[in-house]
Amino acid sequence: MGKSETFQDLALMPPGEGQELGRWLYSELRAAILDGRLKPGSRMPSTRGLSKQYALARGTVAVAFDQLKSEGYVEATVGAGTFVATRIPDDTVAVQSVSAGPAMEPSKAGLASRGRATVDGVRLLPASHSLGIAFRSYEPAIDLFPVSLWSRVAGRVLRNAPRALYGQGDARGYLPLRKAIAEYIGAARGVRCDADQIIVTAGAQQGLDLMARMLLDPGDAVWMEDPGYPGAVFAFRAAGAKVVAVPVDRHGVVVDEARKLRPEARVAYVTPANQFPLGVTMAPHRRAELLDWAAGRNAWIIEDEYDAEYRYSGPPVPSLQSLDRSGCVIYMGTFTKMLFNSLRLGFIVLPQRIVEPFMAARTVLDRHPPTLDQAVLADFIMDGHFGHHVRRMRQVYARRSAALCDASSELAGCLDVVQPVSGMRTLGWVKTQEPDSQVAARARSLGLEVAALSDFTQRHAHPGALVLGFAGCSTAELKRGVEVLAGAFQAGTSAVHQGA
Amino acid sequence: MGKSETFQDLALMPPGEGQELGRWLYSELRAAILDGRLKPGSRMPSTRGLSKQYALARGTVAVAFDQLKSEGYVEATVGAGTFVATRIPDDTVAVQSVSAGPAMEPSKAGLASRGRATVDGVRLLPASHSLGIAFRSYEPAIDLFPVSLWSRVAGRVLRNAPRALYGQGDARGYLPLRKAIAEYIGAARGVRCDADQIIVTAGAQQGLDLMARMLLDPGDAVWMEDPGYPGAVFAFRAAGAKVVAVPVDRHGVVVDEARKLRPEARVAYVTPANQFPLGVTMAPHRRAELLDWAAGRNAWIIEDEYDAEYRYSGPPVPSLQSLDRSGCVIYMGTFTKMLFNSLRLGFIVLPQRIVEPFMAARTVLDRHPPTLDQAVLADFIMDGHFGHHVRRMRQVYARRSAALCDASSELAGCLDVVQPVSGMRTLGWVKTQEPDSQVAARARSLGLEVAALSDFTQRHAHPGALVLGFAGCSTAELKRGVEVLAGAFQAGTSAVHQGA
Repeated sequence: MGKSETFQDLALMPPGEGQELGRWLYSELRAAILDGRLKPGSRMPSTRGLSKQYALARGTVAVAFDQLKSEGYVEATVGAGTFVATRIPDDTVAVQSVSAGPAMEPSKAGLASRGRATVDGVRLLPASHSLGIAFRSYEPAIDLFPVSLWSRVAGRVLRNAPRALYGQGDARGYLPLRKAIAEYIGAARGVRCDADQIIVTAGAQQGLDLMARMLLDPGDAVWMEDPGYPGAVFAFRAAGAKVVAVPVDRHGVVVDEARKLRPEARVAYVTPANQFPLGVTMAPHRRAELLDWAAGRNAWIIEDEYDAEYRYSGPPVPSLQSLDRSGCVIYMGTFTKMLFNSLRLGFIVLPQRIVEPFMAARTVLDRHPPTLDQAVLADFIMDGHFGHHVRRMRQVYARRSAALCDASSELAGCLDVVQPVSGMRTLGWVKTQEPDSQVAARARSLGLEVAALSDFTQRHAHPGALVLGFAGCSTAELKRGVEVLAGAFQAGTSAVHQGA
Repeated sequence: MGKSETFQDLALMPPGEGQELGRWLYSELRAAILDGRLKPGSRMPSTRGLSKQYALARGTVAVAFDQLKSEGYVEATVGAGTFVATRIPDDTVAVQSVSAGPAMEPSKAGLASRGRATVDGVRLLPASHSLGIAFRSYEPAIDLFPVSLWSRVAGRVLRNAPRALYGQGDARGYLPLRKAIAEYIGAARGVRCDADQIIVTAGAQQGLDLMARMLLDPGDAVWMEDPGYPGAVFAFRAAGAKVVAVPVDRHGVVVDEARKLRPEARVAYVTPANQFPLGVTMAPHRRAELLDWAAGRNAWIIEDEYDAEYRYSGPPVPSLQSLDRSGCVIYMGTFTKMLFNSLRLGFIVLPQRIVEPFMAARTVLDRHPPTLDQAVLADFIMDGHFGHHVRRMRQVYARRSAALCDASSELAGCLDVVQPVSGMRTLGWVKTQEPDSQVAARARSLGLEVAALSDFTQRHAHPGALVLGFAGCSTAELKRGVEVLAGAFQAGTSAVHQGA
């Protein structure tokens, strides 16, 4: 295959409006390497050719190539040109093999039974090689994250941090960050706490794992919303707990039902502001019932708020923690949804009486969170950038969800997309006869990132639906995503007809 | 109390030679606030007075004040001057209360039995409010860490990182970092591995916790060096394992003894390059015995190398992993000792057959390590800064250990300080009649950070010794520390005489 031929095969997608050209070229070339259009070991298209065909400055092309080189996608040989690396640094391949690979022989692997139970059925979120894939639901609008502002704050913090911040840190996290968090959630969510009740965690997941280990003995029951958040289910299962699937209706988790099933549960996990993934808000009477049960049974409520700041209509909903009079609610939040995933910072707010044992446990887990990251985040919040970013994103997400709903009229008769009142994703109810998992699988085969409602269900079946993220995709990407989705339904219809 | 009086009481230690004056003033004022010389709510000495008495530029004083203000130690009121905060942001106070506080009533606290067992006896490392305290043993030379170089690399990485690095990351960690690690430990320690066998962890502690959870069922036996590293003991205990204390002699862990005690152990934890805390190197015949046992029993060896790069005399010692032919060694390392503690990045190297379940487990623990920190570290390594820093620190630590040994001639008859062949700390054998824990306690009461050998011992008593870190202290600080230590011994002698 000649040089020009390789190049012709590339068929790069044109840059989006306003997209920075160097970044565009980099992403497109990397995508071509990852999906095999540019084969390992093959010669890269020349910078001259690329700059000519796409009317790019040679410098722009060189920057994209340098980036690819520094990440190991391409290799340059003096005089011989640039080649696709023979070994592609692609995480996706290996990640996929976790689910797709051959089953491991447990006895040979030498893992403990608990170790095997911990990982049973765990799904990995794929590493992001690109952004804006419709309808990815676990990433915020990283395309609009103020990267240069963040870099500037980080540069200032790193240059000026006292050296003690490079030494051993507090197990709960960096105090100025905990103060900033306490102030923010007090104002925004009515959470009542001091900085010393907060433990900064490595995202929400570590908070869940820490709580599961400290609050649950093997065999203890935990109420879990059904459908519900798999990250919580995995953490509870890893602790050997008995996960009790509790139905959710339009008022939120059905507390009466849970009481009938397992009144003696030690923990209830809930998402009151925006139920994952149904999107309902827990009604006041359900909140009261839940708090009553926990207070009477000396049980714990884990209140997981991951995107409560994004509310588009209706009155603001206070946190459950703000209603708690008996100190049985542990509130958790995360910055990965408010800012960006790879920051890996979240927090839990503990009743005072269990702060000390949790600090000690955190020491056993991983000592303490990285101090400099926390110092950057603390400054970002205290300088007002965080509040500004959240307010801006609320407007952006409102526009994006409106764009999704508008575009989805094209899917009438196939998918009924719910106008979300809050959050970063919504549901589309499947109106065809096909199971939602089948629709989702076909959509994924067409390049979309779509989950089915039934993926999150344990026992209580709902009508079929797709979980559609909109926060991380531009309106153009959402529209294109809806078109592809329409194709998926069409393919389904013809498949059904062919089958019939 | 008048303004000048408060000020006179301060008695600031003069700045060390070459110490940056703003940083010095900041640390001294903070120390005065923390130890109560400057009381909460009291007026701070005026910038004018400070600048006059210590011959400092007003700007220098202002910078120190700003830093104290931004960290919440002081509060400024327009027109009224600057006051010590009424609530001091001091982590030490709360940290100490974990061990010193009133015993929690477990049933009331509502923690699980496992949760309580997890934190039983856990000691927290205090957060660093100052550096260079003799003889802190768990911090490297943070005073010499190239902060501005690190900031520069970080700034470049943050500005230029593709936005996908802000999205979801790989559960194993950032691939370019894993490649850099594989290359480095291959060259420096003979570790044979590919980047895809490496999982980047939040320091060594998370690696230990992850392995304990994946390799040990409750009741499983694990061989633990005695004396040994408490962080490992806590992780194994948290997993419900039976920790078997194995004696250590001058050839390292006594494998024969362990075989007699619990031949069926699932895991052996060892520190072959520099036994913690005795400092012995595991002899070749012991290595062979240990590998034989593990291969024959299908058991695991955890090889913890935390400062193997720092070797001052004798031939280099290869890693145990490099001798392993049956894939039973898991090698672990950490950057917290090579660079700085609050970075919280380490790694484990897994045999290929258990990489996938470990990835899934890592997802349950906390998803993945923070990507941008990893990208900064990857560049720091690939640009050659890491290698340069380690080589420089090797020379510095050799000088510091020599200074400690020289100074310790003053302690003749009380403490016999061992000239270390490697690492960041050494032992001083107690020659008086007092138990080492008593000497250490008195030294701590005089402001030193000293642990006793018996603090790390489970069953196999050794003669009394103090564990003396030297890497994180300047030669001046070490000398001063030895003087204080001499005072501690003197106080001990008079106490004994008074008692007699």
